[in-house]
Amino acid sequence: MKLLDKINDPADLKALSGGEVGLLAGELREVILQTVARCGGHLGSNLGAVELTLALLRSFDLPRDRIVWDVGHQTYACKLLTGRQKQFENLRQFNGCCGFPVRGESEFDCYSAGHAGVAISAALGMCSAMTGSDAPNKVIAVVGDGAIGSGVALEGLNQVRERGKNLIIVLNDNKMAISPNVGAISRCLNRVMLSYRYRSIKNCAKALIRLLPKSNKIYHAVSRLEDGAKNLLLPGGPFQELGIRYIGPINGHDLQALERTFKAVQRDDRPVIIHVVTEKGRGYAPALAAPERFHGVGKFDLATGKPLTVSPPGFSAAFGNAVCNLAAEESSLTAVVAAMTGGVGLEKFAQKYPDRFYDAGMAESHAVSFSSGLAASGRKVICAIYATFMQRSLDNIFHDVCLMRLPVIFALDRAGLVEDGPTHHGIYDLGFLLGLPNLCIMQPACEAEVEPMLKLALQLDQPSAIRYPRGSSNAAKRSDIPACTEISYGKSALWRDGKDLAIYASGAEAVRAMEIADILARKNQLDVKVVNVRFLKPFDRSALQNDLQNMDVFTLEDHVAATGLGAVAAQAAAEIAAPKRLYTLGLPADGVVGFGAVNLLRQTLALDNDGIAGTIAAAVGSHR
Amino acid sequence: MKLLDKINDPADLKALSGGEVGLLAGELREVILQTVARCGGHLGSNLGAVELTLALLRSFDLPRDRIVWDVGHQTYACKLLTGRQKQFENLRQFNGCCGFPVRGESEFDCYSAGHAGVAISAALGMCSAMTGSDAPNKVIAVVGDGAIGSGVALEGLNQVRERGKNLIIVLNDNKMAISPNVGAISRCLNRVMLSYRYRSIKNCAKALIRLLPKSNKIYHAVSRLEDGAKNLLLPGGPFQELGIRYIGPINGHDLQALERTFKAVQRDDRPVIIHVVTEKGRGYAPALAAPERFHGVGKFDLATGKPLTVSPPGFSAAFGNAVCNLAAEESSLTAVVAAMTGGVGLEKFAQKYPDRFYDAGMAESHAVSFSSGLAASGRKVICAIYATFMQRSLDNIFHDVCLMRLPVIFALDRAGLVEDGPTHHGIYDLGFLLGLPNLCIMQPACEAEVEPMLKLALQLDQPSAIRYPRGSSNAAKRSDIPACTEISYGKSALWRDGKDLAIYASGAEAVRAMEIADILARKNQLDVKVVNVRFLKPFDRSALQNDLQNMDVFTLEDHVAATGLGAVAAQAAAEIAAPKRLYTLGLPADGVVGFGAVNLLRQTLALDNDGIAGTIAAAVGSHR
Repeated sequence: MKLLDKINDPADLKALSGGEVGLLAGELREVILQTVARCGGHLGSNLGAVELTLALLRSFDLPRDRIVWDVGHQTYACKLLTGRQKQFENLRQFNGCCGFPVRGESEFDCYSAGHAGVAISAALGMCSAMTGSDAPNKVIAVVGDGAIGSGVALEGLNQVRERGKNLIIVLNDNKMAISPNVGAISRCLNRVMLSYRYRSIKNCAKALIRLLPKSNKIYHAVSRLEDGAKNLLLPGGPFQELGIRYIGPINGHDLQALERTFKAVQRDDRPVIIHVVTEKGRGYAPALAAPERFHGVGKFDLATGKPLTVSPPGFSAAFGNAVCNLAAEESSLTAVVAAMTGGVGLEKFAQKYPDRFYDAGMAESHAVSFSSGLAASGRKVICAIYATFMQRSLDNIFHDVCLMRLPVIFALDRAGLVEDGPTHHGIYDLGFLLGLPNLCIMQPACEAEVEPMLKLALQLDQPSAIRYPRGSSNAAKRSDIPACTEISYGKSALWRDGKDLAIYASGAEAVRAMEIADILARKNQLDVKVVNVRFLKPFDRSALQNDLQNMDVFTLEDHVAATGLGAVAAQAAAEIAAPKRLYTLGLPADGVVGFGAVNLLRQTLALDNDGIAGTIAAAVGSHR
Repeated sequence: MKLLDKINDPADLKALSGGEVGLLAGELREVILQTVARCGGHLGSNLGAVELTLALLRSFDLPRDRIVWDVGHQTYACKLLTGRQKQFENLRQFNGCCGFPVRGESEFDCYSAGHAGVAISAALGMCSAMTGSDAPNKVIAVVGDGAIGSGVALEGLNQVRERGKNLIIVLNDNKMAISPNVGAISRCLNRVMLSYRYRSIKNCAKALIRLLPKSNKIYHAVSRLEDGAKNLLLPGGPFQELGIRYIGPINGHDLQALERTFKAVQRDDRPVIIHVVTEKGRGYAPALAAPERFHGVGKFDLATGKPLTVSPPGFSAAFGNAVCNLAAEESSLTAVVAAMTGGVGLEKFAQKYPDRFYDAGMAESHAVSFSSGLAASGRKVICAIYATFMQRSLDNIFHDVCLMRLPVIFALDRAGLVEDGPTHHGIYDLGFLLGLPNLCIMQPACEAEVEPMLKLALQLDQPSAIRYPRGSSNAAKRSDIPACTEISYGKSALWRDGKDLAIYASGAEAVRAMEIADILARKNQLDVKVVNVRFLKPFDRSALQNDLQNMDVFTLEDHVAATGLGAVAAQAAAEIAAPKRLYTLGLPADGVVGFGAVNLLRQTLALDNDGIAGTIAAAVGSHR
């Protein structure tokens, strides 16, 4: 029987000996590896946080003390140790165990998370709510070295001294955001690690330890000295300056050192930051060798680390290639990303044009305002950020780009639903963007439209946003999609003519609409028109208004319909008091869309092909 | 003739003697005071930045060197010194001189601004665009001590070392955000100022200077020492840790010290932060005595500082009173603001319940996540932020509040148009908020609805947002508005019955709709129904859908119609293929709404009472 099988909550964990905990760490790594290989998920960060999690759960009094996991993609060990081993078998699967902490999934998940940097602020709120208590419980914010450079984390840090007397910040430093880390804070942390004095004292202590028998009191004194020396000698980077006591660096895989430190700070009544150094991908050679690829992975072969399914190139790749092609012609073309070089498909561009590539780190607001500064100096700028993370920079998009009408092109990757779930769906951005002056908003329906769309955007004397989903469209599987070599500003494209009803679809949903048209023809003998809505703004109102004279129209999109294409189309319809009906199909503004395989998520919403075809057939049938 | 009359651009300024510049500073203060007393505007920050502006314009090579003014409400002196004296007479007036820098207004305004904290990022973008130049021009970011704590400013600071070799950050430290400043960085700056060693060396140098004749070489050496000593002795706060050279503190009203410093750093090719201490309201006793009130003021009497027009209490006051009343009954009620205690009407609450009041500083993302942490610990939280600044925290509203369904109440003050113009209109927020799950969105039509609406929100088991405009509604002037003691969840209120057409209006626009109904009755003999749309979400669809069976409906709102009530209503109309027309009146999604008196802005958009009445009459007439 495995040790892990006996652990149902942190109390069981506390009963283990030090040696047993070491064994348990190995078991946890094994389960995490097996499960992620089978289900996909965040691997590197979870392998890195095993000992840290064990030490936290053994040292603190949970759930009375509270752990707020920043980003939350490093909580697999915590889930396994808090009664969720069974659910964990279905990690990230529909109706299974969420890949992030979720308030409600367990009393040990006190805060839902998904985006980086908010843990300090949330933890400060919890600390403040305990004001007045004589012995308030501890609140522990576990923050990565990438996330600590995000604006909201820094805003939080700036308030720790005033509000965080029972706050412990654990800085989980693995030298990575998702791409390798950037910025001065990260550099500070490195400098601390490399400092000569620290290393020499440490080496000296180590040498002494080796000479002494383990039972010797001096041995323990010296090992404590090894930790203590750091606190005395090291400057604490910028944290000390902010009034936060700094302890570290601690080896994040040394269970004893971690527990000793966590127990030592429990008596304090002032905020402390504990700098813990962990290794992303610890214990799994392929992940150590390619940390960015193993940050988040699909199913893979455990023995080799190789992916089990190879996806077709898809939108991100089409984008990356297009940017390279266009950069060859336009020498001022510059690209800005926010810690997602590979994710957005710009690895090749970054290598080929290092002087025209900027990684702003996990700092989306800065990334947009920085792009604006480049554009205000004459550069043509493409700022590529996932749709979900772009929510961090909506104010900057308005002020620093749209209001000055600067020609920045926003590339919103991962628009629509994604496996990771509600924290990562890119389904809200249009609501804000559609209201902004000067902004052109487009969606390519397939990979082939990406480059012509970018080309058009580069010619525009105004900012633009181009949204596209994760993965690929099904366009390559069809022969009836018209070739696209050029995009006409503000015009939709007729993809299939029909007389019974029309589907107006944006983005890759247009390809889906072709598939649905096939179903409706076959099953319901309906002759369906399909229009590829390339422009959300300016919207091609007249095409829709003409069709609404003769047939029912269904909009279809990968966004909340109430604040996306559905809203745009409804207004065009209202303008003419359309004699035919408009139906808006898309994601709901009420209720949360969960996590798991996107096709399953779509089924629950009746937004899979059969579901949509059924909805359309019923609607048309009901008033025929 | 005044010296100022001879200054058309910075070149003229450079020809002046030191004595003349001192006189000019006095003239600038006088013009700024006279103009703001007549036109309203930002007073304290502009009086404080006079010498700083003179020194910058004299020391640098503008417009080749570039100044990015953060927030931009401190640029009156810059406008007066760069050929805009004539326009400045119409400061903040419709078609006059904008109260903020505007790209296009002058070649010396290289970057439009309005919200705090983006200057460093934008300036880094400009620096990066100059990469490759042997002797790149300097980019100067002028940032206040309040704004430097905002997330985007901190994200920018974290990248200065890597990207800012020709960047100069001028930290204009006046100890104030708008409310007194908060946070550890601010504390650091104060500590620097108060440090014993700094003061004693400074006093010693001062004493020496007093003993020496001004012509003496030692005098100059000692005054340089006075500056230099600081650099040697002071730690540079957290900036040094971030790899940015720190110089300061410099007396921001000492022209010679400022110019000496600015000239000295021009030869450097590494980033520097110059800490300049200014006095908010310098030279005007009433502003020195009440800095928060004189941050932004309406017209006032120069002799006494008293406002010339006393506004009726309005929505902010109603909100402040309501929060106090409700706090007396609900002991867990807690309020969070972001550097706007007075602006949002919570001064009294902050005094009465200091343990339940938190000022998060200019850090809107943190404010929302902090509110979420309080709510996750059982507090009932009201988070009050201007609608325009809430754009900074949309991602946090979704993740940290809506997704966890935490009962935070967002109070969005200053919704709709404001005199300050495009950077401050609160007209985009609904686009994003309407898509979010679990969020209830309300707008009180008049002051009397604020407290019942807050009361309802406190009873809800879900988050909510309550939007209201600056100033007051005209409700008190009418006797035909039904009294409101209770708000029914999700229900609109019928304010006036009619049979020819209906106006569905949200917020204070509902009161305006009553006035328009009077005009239409008088001028066009139209019998107008008026519905007060209290809930944007959930929206009372059935009332609207019923009316659309019988009469044309006009929506009216203080938001971009395409992403606000207009969008919501159009979707309800589309659902029933309404036989009657829906018209959506509100702010445009295309084009920028300018600055100046709100009634004039409305006239240009035909959104004043007569304009709207005309539009409605024409629309109804056209198809009768």
